Amino acid sequence: MPVKIALDAMGGDLGPRATVLGSIRALNAFSQLEIQLFGQRQELETALQALPNRSSANLARLSLIHSSSVVAEGAKPSSVLRGSSDSSMAMALRQVADGRAQACVSAGNTGALMALSRSLIGTVSGISRPAISTAIPTRGGGRCYLLDLGANVEADAARLVDFALMGEIMARRVDALKSPRVALLNVGVEGSKGTASVREANVLLSRLSGINYRGFVEGNGIFTGEVDVVVCDGFVGNAVLKASEGLAMMLIDRVQSTFEAHWGSRIVGALARPALRRLKNQLDPVRYNGASLLGLKGIVVKSHGSADATGFFHAISRAFREVDQALPQYLAQELDERRSVITLS
Amino acid sequence: MPVKIALDAMGGDLGPRATVLGSIRALNAFSQLEIQLFGQRQELETALQALPNRSSANLARLSLIHSSSVVAEGAKPSSVLRGSSDSSMAMALRQVADGRAQACVSAGNTGALMALSRSLIGTVSGISRPAISTAIPTRGGGRCYLLDLGANVEADAARLVDFALMGEIMARRVDALKSPRVALLNVGVEGSKGTASVREANVLLSRLSGINYRGFVEGNGIFTGEVDVVVCDGFVGNAVLKASEGLAMMLIDRVQSTFEAHWGSRIVGALARPALRRLKNQLDPVRYNGASLLGLKGIVVKSHGSADATGFFHAISRAFREVDQALPQYLAQELDERRSVITLS
Repeated sequence: MPVKIALDAMGGDLGPRATVLGSIRALNAFSQLEIQLFGQRQELETALQALPNRSSANLARLSLIHSSSVVAEGAKPSSVLRGSSDSSMAMALRQVADGRAQACVSAGNTGALMALSRSLIGTVSGISRPAISTAIPTRGGGRCYLLDLGANVEADAARLVDFALMGEIMARRVDALKSPRVALLNVGVEGSKGTASVREANVLLSRLSGINYRGFVEGNGIFTGEVDVVVCDGFVGNAVLKASEGLAMMLIDRVQSTFEAHWGSRIVGALARPALRRLKNQLDPVRYNGASLLGLKGIVVKSHGSADATGFFHAISRAFREVDQALPQYLAQELDERRSVITLS
Repeated sequence: MPVKIALDAMGGDLGPRATVLGSIRALNAFSQLEIQLFGQRQELETALQALPNRSSANLARLSLIHSSSVVAEGAKPSSVLRGSSDSSMAMALRQVADGRAQACVSAGNTGALMALSRSLIGTVSGISRPAISTAIPTRGGGRCYLLDLGANVEADAARLVDFALMGEIMARRVDALKSPRVALLNVGVEGSKGTASVREANVLLSRLSGINYRGFVEGNGIFTGEVDVVVCDGFVGNAVLKASEGLAMMLIDRVQSTFEAHWGSRIVGALARPALRRLKNQLDPVRYNGASLLGLKGIVVKSHGSADATGFFHAISRAFREVDQALPQYLAQELDERRSVITLS
């Protein structure tokens, strides 16, 4: 069965060059994949023609669909909703809404993507706003889903429980973990610590059977590898993620200059650079991996605005895996089952 | 004029060995410093006798005061307040309260230190709870004060403005910055983003003259060097700080194993190790620098529980500089002046 993904090829700082190249890589990697590229036809064709080694077999699985406008990076979600429906983002999302594609990937304006996704695709029962989640690299080579990353700047206990359930389902389905370890982010590990929402969510999750809930972790717990899903409100998650990106950039710079300063050796510096660049990419998880909008009736993956072709490739791969695992269907079904348990108990 | 600092020598995971060694280093560094060590006399004496190169001139500025108990790491603040007043922490804080020392440094239980500080020393007018702040290293070799780090898990707009003012005064007085750049941490830089508290604080700070307020920064702004003070509630600050510590640890590990894997060379690994360890220390700011409790009538610096002698030395140095700059007096005076302006306008 083919997997059809609609790509907003105009989003992202690097323009169609990166999205087109990322698409070609994904087509090479997944033989069942079909990509629909939405954007200015002329630009997309130019980007395609500039590619080296185009395999015609792969190009047969790529279609271009012209869109006459692009959602501006600074556009407000409200004006995007009122505005024209012929943007590459809206058109790509409509493919998912209408069942002509199983997933959408965009590197455009996050607020607009969120608003258009809610309006065109809709959320599963009981979820008012999707949560944004990405896989953070951990010690020992693992990964940890952090959510929410900014869609919900405030979250009461019930919302935090929703995030926990959605993250757990994601890690179980998409990463094939048998029993993902789930934790709530807090300022300490004792039950008395934190805000009322976090304490109440802790009580609710502790009572819930069928979830491997591990209680509270502090911020460092995101990276230790001790849990697979860490839940917090979108303000905290966004601050933590962006601070981590900032720190990773600074650290890599310092490591590089430390090496160059200490051995004066440009050779060591030159040898180190590619390894450090790889590390920097890995530690810039949103840019690198893409972030899922969880809780929609369809699959939408946000690629970082400054993602290069590799970043796009990873975002498309994530969307592909979510389609393959029928994530939204499981999410809707399992959330319903869980909620009935919470209500009964 | 001598600067007298009371040290809770029993706090911290490494016990008196680290606190005593850190104290001796501080006495070597600051000729006006006098240290009062509070703890089990026998343990303190043993730690002192184990020191190499004890200079009798420096030891003359060190006094030992016996305390018969220690605040347990897991003790609840409420029980510490009700409990015995003969702990090393309570006795050291009482020195400040009674004017027999100008600052207290402790690596003990943060909640207990906060509760005992409020109760014994008291807060300056208008500040109900102190904020915790530490200096985070930034790109370009600078530093940025982040506050609050966990004393106030929730903060309304007025509290955020207090934090901004206290951080600004700290950076101006203690770091001698002429006009520290202050920002609010948010999930975006537009005025419409974030929680109600953050948006309201933004309006209040924008109207305030005499403060170099730069608006919102996102999490990465803590590390870029673009601002000197970043303000957020204690939940967010704590999550960001601990996530940063966790990420720094993971990154340093990965850098090390990347180097070792790529050149197979143990020599490069061995050469890199001290430089990497230095970096790790620098990027573990609380452990390294100590954190100030801002808004008290006296000076209290929290040293990290797992701080070694160098960490203690830095915490004592911070306390020394705060004494030297008469921080609490300026804080009380300037907060009063600012508040009258806010009320008038």
